[in-house]
Amino acid sequence: MIKNVERGCFITLEGGEGAGKSTQIRHLAERLKERRLDVLITREPGGTPGGEAIRQLLVNGDTGRWQPMTEALLHTAARVEHVHKVIEPALSRGVWVISDRFADSTRAYQGAAQGLSVETVDDLQRLALGTFAPDLTLILDLPVTVALKRTQERGTAAEDRYERMGHSFHERLRAAFLDIARNEPSRCRVIDASGSIEEVASRVWTTVRDALIP
Amino acid sequence: MIKNVERGCFITLEGGEGAGKSTQIRHLAERLKERRLDVLITREPGGTPGGEAIRQLLVNGDTGRWQPMTEALLHTAARVEHVHKVIEPALSRGVWVISDRFADSTRAYQGAAQGLSVETVDDLQRLALGTFAPDLTLILDLPVTVALKRTQERGTAAEDRYERMGHSFHERLRAAFLDIARNEPSRCRVIDASGSIEEVASRVWTTVRDALIP
Repeated sequence: MIKNVERGCFITLEGGEGAGKSTQIRHLAERLKERRLDVLITREPGGTPGGEAIRQLLVNGDTGRWQPMTEALLHTAARVEHVHKVIEPALSRGVWVISDRFADSTRAYQGAAQGLSVETVDDLQRLALGTFAPDLTLILDLPVTVALKRTQERGTAAEDRYERMGHSFHERLRAAFLDIARNEPSRCRVIDASGSIEEVASRVWTTVRDALIP
Repeated sequence: MIKNVERGCFITLEGGEGAGKSTQIRHLAERLKERRLDVLITREPGGTPGGEAIRQLLVNGDTGRWQPMTEALLHTAARVEHVHKVIEPALSRGVWVISDRFADSTRAYQGAAQGLSVETVDDLQRLALGTFAPDLTLILDLPVTVALKRTQERGTAAEDRYERMGHSFHERLRAAFLDIARNEPSRCRVIDASGSIEEVASRVWTTVRDALIP
């Protein structure tokens, strides 16, 4: 997939809690910078002042605080701000953008794991964002027991509303991300997220280089 | 329109800033209570703890704070909570619900006056709420100069983000509400909101009685 040199590439990292997305994003950004690319790291929900305000409504409070549709709408609201005010302007300037989560998280969390249906979430994304989509999505895959053990070792009690949703919730989530990868093989790659940080970073870099670097 | 006695009626009041909706809602509720009906008064954005938190993101801050699509999504998110947790349970118990604003405000504000398109907002409402709609919508209509003079006399500087959006914005808004009424004559009635509170209350009551009271 050779990109127009004028425009940056948009890469998203997806997966359940504890898959190591933020660590891997820092490693990937370093590799891209070594290639003299401008890189912007961002995250969802959030990424803009308004989006971060919406984030606070989503990552805190009771696990049953919102209807699944409400959650999908709030995530999508934050995403519209993120795309219009941060991601699209950066890509237009030639900056490569790496986002910790994007629309696939809404598909997997609210669509599949919380039961809204992936089709409904897809309709909502199309209505809000048109055809805007990542150039490449890396789905970091890990057995749920390993992933949840990692989040417990991380030991932050803050912003843990989704982590508290129970084992079967996280199993549905993992299956949903693998389904997304199966349905969109040209955009998505599944990365085995087990092993050391360096091992996973090496898999991530090989995948990004093969997919996006001419 | 004779309703099943088991279920309450859902009445919404719509219109621009300063049309007198909240005053008229109190008067209407009194009239309905005199008929021994249980009445719940509520409002949008808001109406639930989560919805009120979303409201704070919408009614404060810079007028250009959000993309129109973001605003439509946030209003709709609050509305989903409102319908599922307050309006629908009350109607099921036989309570009559009067809401200060509902989906028509998103159509008029974000769809027409902020330029998102009424069709896009309609698609979003259908996706989020299915076919749920008010039994009767009263659109309080007032010339913009008169309405804005009323909001100035009210003199509250709080929650005035929409009031600060300028004269031509409010003209588009008024036209949009009148369009909605023309397109859905079985659900909507336009009420002349000029004159004294008592005069308008009398017009409101006559309209509600003729439309909903057997």
